[in-house]
Amino acid sequence: MRFSHVTVPTLREKPADAETASHELLIRAGMMRPAAAGIYSFLPLGALALARVENIVRDEMNAAGALEVALPTLHPSEPWIQSGRWQAYGPEMMRMKDRQGREFCLGPTAEEVITSIIARSAPSYRDLPINLYQIQTKFRDEIRPRFGLMRGREFRMKDAYSFHTSEEDLDREFKAMYGAYVSIAKRCSLETSVVEAATGLIGGSESSEFMVPSDIGEDVLVHCESCDYGANAEMEKHRPAIKMGEAAAGSLEEVHTPGMTSIEEVAGFMKTAQTSVIKCVLYVSGNEPVAVFVPGYRDVSESKLAMHLGTDDFHPMREDEIERYPDLAVGFVGPVGLDGVKTVFDSELKGVKGVICGANRSDYHLRGVEEERDFNAEPLFDVASVQEGDLCFKCGGALKLSRGIEIGHIFKLGLKYSEPLNAVFSDKSGELKPIIMGTYGIGTSRMLATVVEQHHDEAGIKWPRAVAPLPVEIIVLGTEDAKQVETALKLQADLKDRGLGVLYDDRDLSPGIKFNDADLVGLPLQVVIGKKLASDGTVDVKTRYTGLKSAFEVESAADMITRALDEAP
Amino acid sequence: MRFSHVTVPTLREKPADAETASHELLIRAGMMRPAAAGIYSFLPLGALALARVENIVRDEMNAAGALEVALPTLHPSEPWIQSGRWQAYGPEMMRMKDRQGREFCLGPTAEEVITSIIARSAPSYRDLPINLYQIQTKFRDEIRPRFGLMRGREFRMKDAYSFHTSEEDLDREFKAMYGAYVSIAKRCSLETSVVEAATGLIGGSESSEFMVPSDIGEDVLVHCESCDYGANAEMEKHRPAIKMGEAAAGSLEEVHTPGMTSIEEVAGFMKTAQTSVIKCVLYVSGNEPVAVFVPGYRDVSESKLAMHLGTDDFHPMREDEIERYPDLAVGFVGPVGLDGVKTVFDSELKGVKGVICGANRSDYHLRGVEEERDFNAEPLFDVASVQEGDLCFKCGGALKLSRGIEIGHIFKLGLKYSEPLNAVFSDKSGELKPIIMGTYGIGTSRMLATVVEQHHDEAGIKWPRAVAPLPVEIIVLGTEDAKQVETALKLQADLKDRGLGVLYDDRDLSPGIKFNDADLVGLPLQVVIGKKLASDGTVDVKTRYTGLKSAFEVESAADMITRALDEAP
Repeated sequence: MRFSHVTVPTLREKPADAETASHELLIRAGMMRPAAAGIYSFLPLGALALARVENIVRDEMNAAGALEVALPTLHPSEPWIQSGRWQAYGPEMMRMKDRQGREFCLGPTAEEVITSIIARSAPSYRDLPINLYQIQTKFRDEIRPRFGLMRGREFRMKDAYSFHTSEEDLDREFKAMYGAYVSIAKRCSLETSVVEAATGLIGGSESSEFMVPSDIGEDVLVHCESCDYGANAEMEKHRPAIKMGEAAAGSLEEVHTPGMTSIEEVAGFMKTAQTSVIKCVLYVSGNEPVAVFVPGYRDVSESKLAMHLGTDDFHPMREDEIERYPDLAVGFVGPVGLDGVKTVFDSELKGVKGVICGANRSDYHLRGVEEERDFNAEPLFDVASVQEGDLCFKCGGALKLSRGIEIGHIFKLGLKYSEPLNAVFSDKSGELKPIIMGTYGIGTSRMLATVVEQHHDEAGIKWPRAVAPLPVEIIVLGTEDAKQVETALKLQADLKDRGLGVLYDDRDLSPGIKFNDADLVGLPLQVVIGKKLASDGTVDVKTRYTGLKSAFEVESAADMITRALDEAP
Repeated sequence: MRFSHVTVPTLREKPADAETASHELLIRAGMMRPAAAGIYSFLPLGALALARVENIVRDEMNAAGALEVALPTLHPSEPWIQSGRWQAYGPEMMRMKDRQGREFCLGPTAEEVITSIIARSAPSYRDLPINLYQIQTKFRDEIRPRFGLMRGREFRMKDAYSFHTSEEDLDREFKAMYGAYVSIAKRCSLETSVVEAATGLIGGSESSEFMVPSDIGEDVLVHCESCDYGANAEMEKHRPAIKMGEAAAGSLEEVHTPGMTSIEEVAGFMKTAQTSVIKCVLYVSGNEPVAVFVPGYRDVSESKLAMHLGTDDFHPMREDEIERYPDLAVGFVGPVGLDGVKTVFDSELKGVKGVICGANRSDYHLRGVEEERDFNAEPLFDVASVQEGDLCFKCGGALKLSRGIEIGHIFKLGLKYSEPLNAVFSDKSGELKPIIMGTYGIGTSRMLATVVEQHHDEAGIKWPRAVAPLPVEIIVLGTEDAKQVETALKLQADLKDRGLGVLYDDRDLSPGIKFNDADLVGLPLQVVIGKKLASDGTVDVKTRYTGLKSAFEVESAADMITRALDEAP
């Protein structure tokens, strides 16, 4: 592949919207270009790197006995309506109508399509288990696409679906996929931490996420320092280190708190801790307000709330929506005497006494509030978010919070799709039973970005060998020097014979620019052909990952490069 | 791969909507399943066969020096508006809005996206030529999706885009792509005929189509029996064998023709030939009527009309639309005195004399009509369709009509996209000039169906070796016979070591069903392991394409099968 401004159009400037290293470097190194927010075109080197990652995924899926299929992008609405996800999915699902007015979505995942196929094939117990996967473009209309490939609206994903006659067999496959994912991450030079996770809109009884620890990760992870408990904060369980509202229950009293709508202000004014205040956060779901009550020192976990509401189609009440609900004293809403509004109470509020909450009257709070006596904390759920210092619900150890990038997610689905879509198998006695399912996703374009996130330096990308778009870049310094050019072309041909692709920089530019571009693009080995060729018959070879340089005699250069590659990270 | 009802869910019954062999067989052989009209899921064997075809395409494109990219599915409307195609495309383009209300289409081709990228990279003459391709899912909301993969709404296509500094260099690339397409078709065992074709909505100055001759082809091809002229009927040129309207020009006369709205009726009533009658076909384009006049013995070519109108967003006037245009005497529209309606005249109408046409008054025709004297045939275009018996415009030889399946289409685009999208390069003197472009498409899913169309018999598919999903099927007859099963598994392992994938039929079904399924699925070689294993130590091997059978000693079976495969078509 010839290095030119078009094939590899490198940029000196950081793109304005690039907040992460992978976003910046993949664009600056000419691997991709934005087409719209969260939608990217892969240029030749980016497409090669993506194919490398996807071939590793394909390889491990095939080794685990899964079979590749290719499902459509456009999914008709009918099976999605049957499964209930057409209704549960909010605006994140991209939808369209065809010229006949029939409704379709652009598949975010494909449980409905594949389960419909299996249902119609009416398998017997002999035909199961089966695991079908595809590597395909997927769509989610993220409200805030960002970090380049990390959170795109159009992205690449491997999705797999397995079908079983028993829970035990699903367990076996779940473990096999777990193993395959560990291998995939390892081959892509990614260290992962596996945590319990929310099943969300996919559903099912249990799921594990494969997380790459990273400060730019959008997921908060919870790990116990004493036992092996690890979970995504969006569904973790914890014990609070402090108990809220243990003051003696006084009598209920209304206090004038003009303009004090924050917990800080109220607690300060009342000369008490935030652990004595009930926080109310108002949401709107399906045009109806929802009042969510949590301890004053915590936030609402929207992912936990989504689980409890059974939809992700809700949002914090906006300024412009307030006037639609004139009965709500926004800023001063409390659980006492609150009627006609859907409520959700965090479990920590059960049995509180002597606490403060909004009085449902502008500029007033109540104090001396007692659960059961003054209001009933129902329905009661775990909807508050975890904090550093919370305790492990299993062993009482201290919980540590960290951030991670989710690259994979595997689920035990049980009957979530097979029941509504009537996917059954006939057992040994000929009886029809619902098929037990699992689903397994790994984001290949996100994984590509994560590799860059984990393997780069100030100068650019440091591709690990297994996912590098090409193994070698050859840089000719004397582009007018016939001997240098001839040597470069011969070396390129020799390496091609060994199955090693080359990026060839024959541009008539200064050595500095070419070296900088080589570091930016970050192929594992850089071969520099310059004046030393004439003086002592050698070429310089630099290992990008380590920065180490060697001089190889030109006659044995192809052999030495092959060997150096075997040793490269 | 294990043969089971789920992995390869074969069907005995022909699908109700299958009108072609490829549609029927790809479904019955368990290669694919419909998800919606014109939208298919590929099951494991179908996905393998598709990958085979696509790898041949990739291979030949790489050999021709093109570089693979991956462009998005969702294209923002802006560059499409700039190129004018957003407006020109009718309901065939699938469009949608994102949650912010921004408009996108699901890419039918990607000229706008790729040209925008090249434009922003501001290449110099040194960086060109370049040819970028992708193999990707494409979308066209066909009004009549049919023939399975032949005319789908979601389909797979390789699309390539080349960028040049001169017409001569585009010519060179056009020939290189022509050569690559010939090689691709040959490797896929498809015979092709290359014809001149309409550039349609893609645009440009010249294009060639790669056609596989077939009675189920949707394209009509025109070939001269005397010279090398060959073209798609949608844009062919011909000379009429008969000259219309050469009667002496009489005087204009109105004739009462009650209820006679067909050419046959009018010609019969007037005791003259259809060559003396002007046919009028009414269309509606953008809510405006268009009257198209052609010789009475010909039809309107809608593809030629699309070229002249510059859009394909028009349709023959429907019954329910007639009342919207009360000034039109529908059934009796003629060119004489027709005002306020857009008209198009076929070139053959220039200079006609003594002909008959509608009188623009219900139940009346005019006779003795003379062009120029009574009306002006303007604008004048070639909009009539060709007929068997027409003459070659080049040499006057007889034209033959036949049908073909279009698998590929290559275009010289010129400046069609680079001008509106401002894609320029700097030449040697630093001057900015528009980039000259070409575009090259080949339908990979359609090519897969075409392979089946051309290679099948009553019993099923006969996969040519190069595109067969797997090379070998092993059928064990005695599924309870440990020796037979052990031999099958060993042979499968031996073939795998040789890089040969196996479909293994170990189902507990009658030999007849298994043989029928093997013929239906149509892998190149069938290895039958049965009682002969015990009696004389042999297995039977059948070449699906020829039907020839041989007995191989079990010890040398893997070697013999490898050799037989080399000889298989």
